[in-house]
Amino acid sequence: MSGNDRFSPSERILSGETTDVYFLNTRQILAAEGIDPVVTMEVFPARDGILCGMREVTALLARVLPETGEAWGLAEGDHITRREVVLRIRAAYQAFGIYETAMLGILAQESGWATAARACVDAAGGIPIIHFGARHVHPDASARLEYAAVVGGCAGCATPAGSALAGLEPSGTIPHALILCLEDTVRAVEAFDRHIDPAVRRIALVDTFKDEAEESLRVARALGDRLWGVRLDTPAERGRVTPELVREVRARLDQAGFSHVKIVVSGGVDPERIGMFRAQDAPVDGFGIGSAISRVSPIDFTADIKEVEGQAIAKRGRIPGLTPNPRLEKIL
Amino acid sequence: MSGNDRFSPSERILSGETTDVYFLNTRQILAAEGIDPVVTMEVFPARDGILCGMREVTALLARVLPETGEAWGLAEGDHITRREVVLRIRAAYQAFGIYETAMLGILAQESGWATAARACVDAAGGIPIIHFGARHVHPDASARLEYAAVVGGCAGCATPAGSALAGLEPSGTIPHALILCLEDTVRAVEAFDRHIDPAVRRIALVDTFKDEAEESLRVARALGDRLWGVRLDTPAERGRVTPELVREVRARLDQAGFSHVKIVVSGGVDPERIGMFRAQDAPVDGFGIGSAISRVSPIDFTADIKEVEGQAIAKRGRIPGLTPNPRLEKIL
Amino acid sequence: MSGNDRFSPSERILSGETTDVYFLNTRQILAAEGIDPVVTMEVFPARDGILCGMREVTALLARVLPETGEAWGLAEGDHITRREVVLRIRAAYQAFGIYETAMLGILAQESGWATAARACVDAAGGIPIIHFGARHVHPDASARLEYAAVVGGCAGCATPAGSALAGLEPSGTIPHALILCLEDTVRAVEAFDRHIDPAVRRIALVDTFKDEAEESLRVARALGDRLWGVRLDTPAERGRVTPELVREVRARLDQAGFSHVKIVVSGGVDPERIGMFRAQDAPVDGFGIGSAISRVSPIDFTADIKEVEGQAIAKRGRIPGLTPNPRLEKIL
Amino acid sequence: MSGNDRFSPSERILSGETTDVYFLNTRQILAAEGIDPVVTMEVFPARDGILCGMREVTALLARVLPETGEAWGLAEGDHITRREVVLRIRAAYQAFGIYETAMLGILAQESGWATAARACVDAAGGIPIIHFGARHVHPDASARLEYAAVVGGCAGCATPAGSALAGLEPSGTIPHALILCLEDTVRAVEAFDRHIDPAVRRIALVDTFKDEAEESLRVARALGDRLWGVRLDTPAERGRVTPELVREVRARLDQAGFSHVKIVVSGGVDPERIGMFRAQDAPVDGFGIGSAISRVSPIDFTADIKEVEGQAIAKRGRIPGLTPNPRLEKIL
Amino acid sequence: MSGNDRFSPSERILSGETTDVYFLNTRQILAAEGIDPVVTMEVFPARDGILCGMREVTALLARVLPETGEAWGLAEGDHITRREVVLRIRAAYQAFGIYETAMLGILAQESGWATAARACVDAAGGIPIIHFGARHVHPDASARLEYAAVVGGCAGCATPAGSALAGLEPSGTIPHALILCLEDTVRAVEAFDRHIDPAVRRIALVDTFKDEAEESLRVARALGDRLWGVRLDTPAERGRVTPELVREVRARLDQAGFSHVKIVVSGGVDPERIGMFRAQDAPVDGFGIGSAISRVSPIDFTADIKEVEGQAIAKRGRIPGLTPNPRLEKIL
Amino acid sequence: MSGNDRFSPSERILSGETTDVYFLNTRQILAAEGIDPVVTMEVFPARDGILCGMREVTALLARVLPETGEAWGLAEGDHITRREVVLRIRAAYQAFGIYETAMLGILAQESGWATAARACVDAAGGIPIIHFGARHVHPDASARLEYAAVVGGCAGCATPAGSALAGLEPSGTIPHALILCLEDTVRAVEAFDRHIDPAVRRIALVDTFKDEAEESLRVARALGDRLWGVRLDTPAERGRVTPELVREVRARLDQAGFSHVKIVVSGGVDPERIGMFRAQDAPVDGFGIGSAISRVSPIDFTADIKEVEGQAIAKRGRIPGLTPNPRLEKIL
Repeated sequence: MSGNDRFSPSERILSGETTDVYFLNTRQILAAEGIDPVVTMEVFPARDGILCGMREVTALLARVLPETGEAWGLAEGDHITRREVVLRIRAAYQAFGIYETAMLGILAQESGWATAARACVDAAGGIPIIHFGARHVHPDASARLEYAAVVGGCAGCATPAGSALAGLEPSGTIPHALILCLEDTVRAVEAFDRHIDPAVRRIALVDTFKDEAEESLRVARALGDRLWGVRLDTPAERGRVTPELVREVRARLDQAGFSHVKIVVSGGVDPERIGMFRAQDAPVDGFGIGSAISRVSPIDFTADIKEVEGQAIAKRGRIPGLTPNPRLEKIL
Repeated sequence: MSGNDRFSPSERILSGETTDVYFLNTRQILAAEGIDPVVTMEVFPARDGILCGMREVTALLARVLPETGEAWGLAEGDHITRREVVLRIRAAYQAFGIYETAMLGILAQESGWATAARACVDAAGGIPIIHFGARHVHPDASARLEYAAVVGGCAGCATPAGSALAGLEPSGTIPHALILCLEDTVRAVEAFDRHIDPAVRRIALVDTFKDEAEESLRVARALGDRLWGVRLDTPAERGRVTPELVREVRARLDQAGFSHVKIVVSGGVDPERIGMFRAQDAPVDGFGIGSAISRVSPIDFTADIKEVEGQAIAKRGRIPGLTPNPRLEKIL
Repeated sequence: MSGNDRFSPSERILSGETTDVYFLNTRQILAAEGIDPVVTMEVFPARDGILCGMREVTALLARVLPETGEAWGLAEGDHITRREVVLRIRAAYQAFGIYETAMLGILAQESGWATAARACVDAAGGIPIIHFGARHVHPDASARLEYAAVVGGCAGCATPAGSALAGLEPSGTIPHALILCLEDTVRAVEAFDRHIDPAVRRIALVDTFKDEAEESLRVARALGDRLWGVRLDTPAERGRVTPELVREVRARLDQAGFSHVKIVVSGGVDPERIGMFRAQDAPVDGFGIGSAISRVSPIDFTADIKEVEGQAIAKRGRIPGLTPNPRLEKIL
Repeated sequence: MSGNDRFSPSERILSGETTDVYFLNTRQILAAEGIDPVVTMEVFPARDGILCGMREVTALLARVLPETGEAWGLAEGDHITRREVVLRIRAAYQAFGIYETAMLGILAQESGWATAARACVDAAGGIPIIHFGARHVHPDASARLEYAAVVGGCAGCATPAGSALAGLEPSGTIPHALILCLEDTVRAVEAFDRHIDPAVRRIALVDTFKDEAEESLRVARALGDRLWGVRLDTPAERGRVTPELVREVRARLDQAGFSHVKIVVSGGVDPERIGMFRAQDAPVDGFGIGSAISRVSPIDFTADIKEVEGQAIAKRGRIPGLTPNPRLEKIL
Repeated sequence: MSGNDRFSPSERILSGETTDVYFLNTRQILAAEGIDPVVTMEVFPARDGILCGMREVTALLARVLPETGEAWGLAEGDHITRREVVLRIRAAYQAFGIYETAMLGILAQESGWATAARACVDAAGGIPIIHFGARHVHPDASARLEYAAVVGGCAGCATPAGSALAGLEPSGTIPHALILCLEDTVRAVEAFDRHIDPAVRRIALVDTFKDEAEESLRVARALGDRLWGVRLDTPAERGRVTPELVREVRARLDQAGFSHVKIVVSGGVDPERIGMFRAQDAPVDGFGIGSAISRVSPIDFTADIKEVEGQAIAKRGRIPGLTPNPRLEKIL
Repeated sequence: MSGNDRFSPSERILSGETTDVYFLNTRQILAAEGIDPVVTMEVFPARDGILCGMREVTALLARVLPETGEAWGLAEGDHITRREVVLRIRAAYQAFGIYETAMLGILAQESGWATAARACVDAAGGIPIIHFGARHVHPDASARLEYAAVVGGCAGCATPAGSALAGLEPSGTIPHALILCLEDTVRAVEAFDRHIDPAVRRIALVDTFKDEAEESLRVARALGDRLWGVRLDTPAERGRVTPELVREVRARLDQAGFSHVKIVVSGGVDPERIGMFRAQDAPVDGFGIGSAISRVSPIDFTADIKEVEGQAIAKRGRIPGLTPNPRLEKIL
């Protein structure tokens, strides 16, 4: 499918069944009253962040707005600030009123995730980050999470569906399950090396049965130059990965002649811990991050009608009329 | 569709495209090696909460496990404790290994939401709560959020899709958009009253243009006995709904002879604020809650292989072999 | 009465009945012993602040010191620092010893109030402040409070007695009582406009019955150009005045053509809240302040005898002899 | 003067010059409009405390209310709770409207002081407290402070004016000034003993020139049985009075045969420090307290019109109509 | 040497060279003046704790007091409370005055250590503790530290000198140095087993080269029934020993049939961490503790002369005369 | 004895009885196995500080290392940083292995004390500090404490043994005991002046019986120019020495013509309190410090074998092979 098609709205969204029912009631009432004013609606976030979801929202509006309708917006991946207007729609209300819930939900959750990803990326200062938090969200939405992580700056993500949305190949190492099924890390790594396309990087997970330093040397001796890297994922019960551990594994690999083997760190990694690794000069070549992105709250977005038939209006607490934002570009 | 059908897995999940790619690689490697051990996998949460998603997971396993496969689990809505085994699967690994990501994601997110809903319900001590947080999550997952909120104890939710999953009718009042289109609250309420099925409760939103106490009296006078209640949703810019405001609106309605009109409170409501309303004896008849449920983090679930071909095994940091849990019931 | 007369001591103070009785006993003992040494007494504050009460203290000393007595002091409104000598008296002890309690009390309370007023004035950065805290202190002292507020930098105060002491006309708007008696804000404002000297500014209080934004527009339409301003005094039960409210009322007034109408803010205003209004660029034209000034503690002043008949002396804990302060000027 | 006369309003209060000017404007407007409704006004505090000032307020209302006017109130010294109605007035508004500022000010400041005194008295658990904070407030109001301290439970106070208001004799010891003039504590105490009415207790201040323990023994030896007690008032520069010091002075006095000499403690005493003395079993026979009472903030009181011509009314944020309080007694 | 001899004073102490020189000056001055009063000196601690050092102090006094001298004291290991008299000496001052520094130093440091040991022992609730903190203190004093740890309740200690003082055999396992010299843990354990008296427990240190769980199983398989236990001493760089690790090693040992092998935990163990192990039901059979005891501050002891020639006396701040303590027993 | 002899090891240390017994077992095992590898051991501290004990350690190694052995180290008094190698030994293991406990203990405790002393010295900014904390530690180790305090920068210490180690004369004033025996401060000072070598400074302790200011003037008048200084040591029960007290004593001494008399402050002095004296410009001429140095924890030192027979090795958590430190100098 084409790049644009990837973001097309599903039938479920178009049908209105995912909207709050009072918007469906409103549609029925206005129709019965024969009222359909041209309104201008503005959408703004409750906190600063990275905007994500605009492609999907734009595709939805392109499907439902009438020819006379117009829309302006900021771009996917833009920095946005609290209360800044990121989307403005001017059209007859009945054409798009029932999609308020869906549009806000898309922006809220994807911007929340992209913002969290950006915080990790900024903390990492150039060290690449792979996202693999799909296991924390419902599979119906996990591709959106992975897409948002890439919009936020991650270098890759782990599911085929998410990678496709982001236009990348999926990234992965070796799960504990394979090692447990084969009952030895070296055996698992060798099997991987035999059967998986040589274009895929060999990254050994080295915390399953033995101490990480010992296991790293075992897999390096087994695969030699074909080993791209090791992944340290020490469980919390063993104290998680520490900067000292990374330095020690690096030193032991180097002393044994495996300077080409890279070190990837995962397990509870978040911006604070990334900062700790960097402050202590731990030689990390990549981070794997899950819940630091997938656990964050959505960014609350609000949609306000600010004009009705060209007249400034607003509910109490808001200033009637349009809120200027020179950064807005016409999108429809 | 039947109650069970509601929870059937989508083709997208069954195809494996929402799984972390290293599980797909593992499937390929084990097939090439001709290995497919019978394993026992256990799933446990990282914190206490309310279990949600088991119906969906059970439906998925029912589709994919071979006849010799077995599964045990706790029930939808059960209280669960940190590290308690909530699901145990024993089967040839290749049959279900690639669904680990999806199963964990379903449980993680729905249990997170149900747990947050239960905290609100517990705080409310019998005052009913309607959930309307769909606007904060992606529409592909919003029905799951609403279902989880009902599993957690909410009395209703707002979208048709979510209500259907929960087996309820959707709940709603009147959005600001209708009032702004009609430019007066009383006019909007009267239009609602004319055109919407009389079986639907008339609940007026009373913070759009005028002070809440004044507007409450205006709509009460307009609809009389047909008015079921008013919803206070004072924006943050006007100080949000306070216990004093609820008491005052109650008193003014009573003094004017409208004791039958109920008061629903929304806007930033969470367990702490519910506690404050109750501690100050504010006469609230219902709460509308969004982000206090939709914003919470997933509950991290972990899947561990604990036996391979009947032999106890585990990765470092875990105790090999099954973890007893007498609460588990056979589900497949 | 003349400017100096305003600060003359009352008969009650001169009689000694407001002094601590042990000073009266001391006068009796020294007289019986035939002892009346020339002493030097120094007065200093326990914390930094704005000095107030010196005019009144000087007028008292002018009445009681003998011709040979001398006094030096700092000026009304001066910044003073902890432990700095602000007043030095050299005279035969019996002439002024019994006035220690009164002199300290005058300085303590008026300096405390003036210091608090200055903190508000500094926070406001040029936005004028009217003081109206008389309702928090005993009416026998309220004129002193209002005088001290003006010494601290307030632009006006509310009672005739206080204003007279400060050499100003009293400032005021419209009380809730008038609006409640007339049962409508517009009716009250129109009555005020009919009967009060046109030289008095028309400032409408707009929080009594309706939302502030709505009421502001009503009174502006009723009085037109004769309306000088509106006062926002939102009660705590409605969330107090917020920066967002001020901005919204300003925008709605401007959109309706009433750019000349100013906005005065009152209700719980203190330096912290003034800072918040300014940090958020709320277009406030004036503040009304009460308890942020009237509630503060007095500044403790201490009087020490540091010389007796020219010999340095002091109680334990103090350094005998005079404490140099080049800022002192001869006042008597 | 009779007991009641002590609380009669001054001409200054009766003239209205101590009221906020907008009440004077209101009087003028209502007169011009020919309006003088019978209103019911209720007065309530912003926090819990001890009510003080009611005698003075009652005397004022007795002077100004017409025959048809009525008033109800709580009693001087009563415990009051936040938002409880402590005074209700029903009369034609013009008769008493301009006294709102004065009535609130009397109650605010005196109740604040009485409440602070009660906190000290409660902490002291039966050990008597003498108040001597007149030096911290303006002499025009210091008698009210001392009266309020006695209403709050103090056993005595220091100024003749304050004591008269409270119906007591003034209490006092010996000031530092007398000791400094006579240049020796023993000499000062002996002079006191020679010239002051033997009915007055001999209490020596023992921190002026020598260590407290040494000085206590010197004055005890000088006056013998005629010495009632010593007052410890160690300055902050010497570490203030500590529980250990009290115990040591007690022990040294007892060892020297002066068990009859009592120990009074002053200097920065407040409820927290009283608690410390009692927790450490320091043998204190009395406390002298100043700023712990005189420094406290007034209790904010509010006056609301709740009925106009028998109809319930209120401004926004308050509940229209009377607030029941069965504790109210008819006072006029 | 006999039990008493162990605590005899060294020549260095007897010579006075370890005393503060002003006591030597005092001895010279009093001798020159021909003054040698009988004094009573009392010694008390600055905080609660366990008394230790009394045997040594008693042995010293037994050597230096004249026949007319007397002493009373509490017993080694007694609980003592802040400011309680623990030692009273009555004798001619010159006989013992120069030993004040030494006596206080003995009590201060040994009581500090014993008190810290008791806190560990109390936290451990019956699980035995071996002390091995000699490496943190000077070897001239380390035997005193180990003795004090045993007085505080430890079951053993590590140096021959300390154990001799405490009347025990020294306790020990295997140091990292032996394992590093032999380059393998199993090899080191087997060598130990070959050459060390079979009466000594075989306790293997299992954190040197491999993961603790793996190494525990290796040494258990190598020594079988002769292995008494394993010691977990995971370094901070690997996250220290955690309750989860202890549980896992226990489970893996049990699953492999080594239920008889005990688990000893060391490395940063203190009362807080002991409490954490017990709260999480970690199956610990013994703790090794070093710095939690050796790092603590001494308990400050003070010696006061309270009588001179039978007359009560004291410096400022202390109560003259003896402080009663019925717990004191005559020791000399 | 010569400078080097002062630091020679005692027989007790050489015998091995102060070492942890597992090192003695190791010696026995290696001997039985006929193994004695050349190893390189490195020693590093757990926190930053001042290195102390190197002279003693060097003297020990000089006694026990074979001719082929080598050692490198930092110098006594050097600043050291966390984990920096401060000592490296290369020799056959059996020659020095049993001295690990003693060497670590010497460095740990003396470096801890020297570091604390340096913190006081740095805070004092040039004002000399005399150490007198011998009373808090065991007399067997107190000379080491005093030596370490001088290494840390103290100008003197109080015991003959400690001063000898540091190459100084002992420093002292007058103890409370002498004053209590003579029952008057002036009498004690005069006796001191009569009998003690005129080369010793006359420093009067002035807090025993009278207020410090009064006593300072008394002793100054008694000794005149022969008085070098006064020591203020106010007990906690009298509020300790405060900056205000120092200023007052200075002023009173100056006013009486005793500007030559210096002021020494003691009693609970630590870096924080030194900072307070200096921030308030208190004219202190010297500090006496005890527990601020003697109470601190040792600095934990660790010894790691990093090479065996020239091969890099290390236990888990450490990087095998030597850790470079260009600051190391060859010491043996």
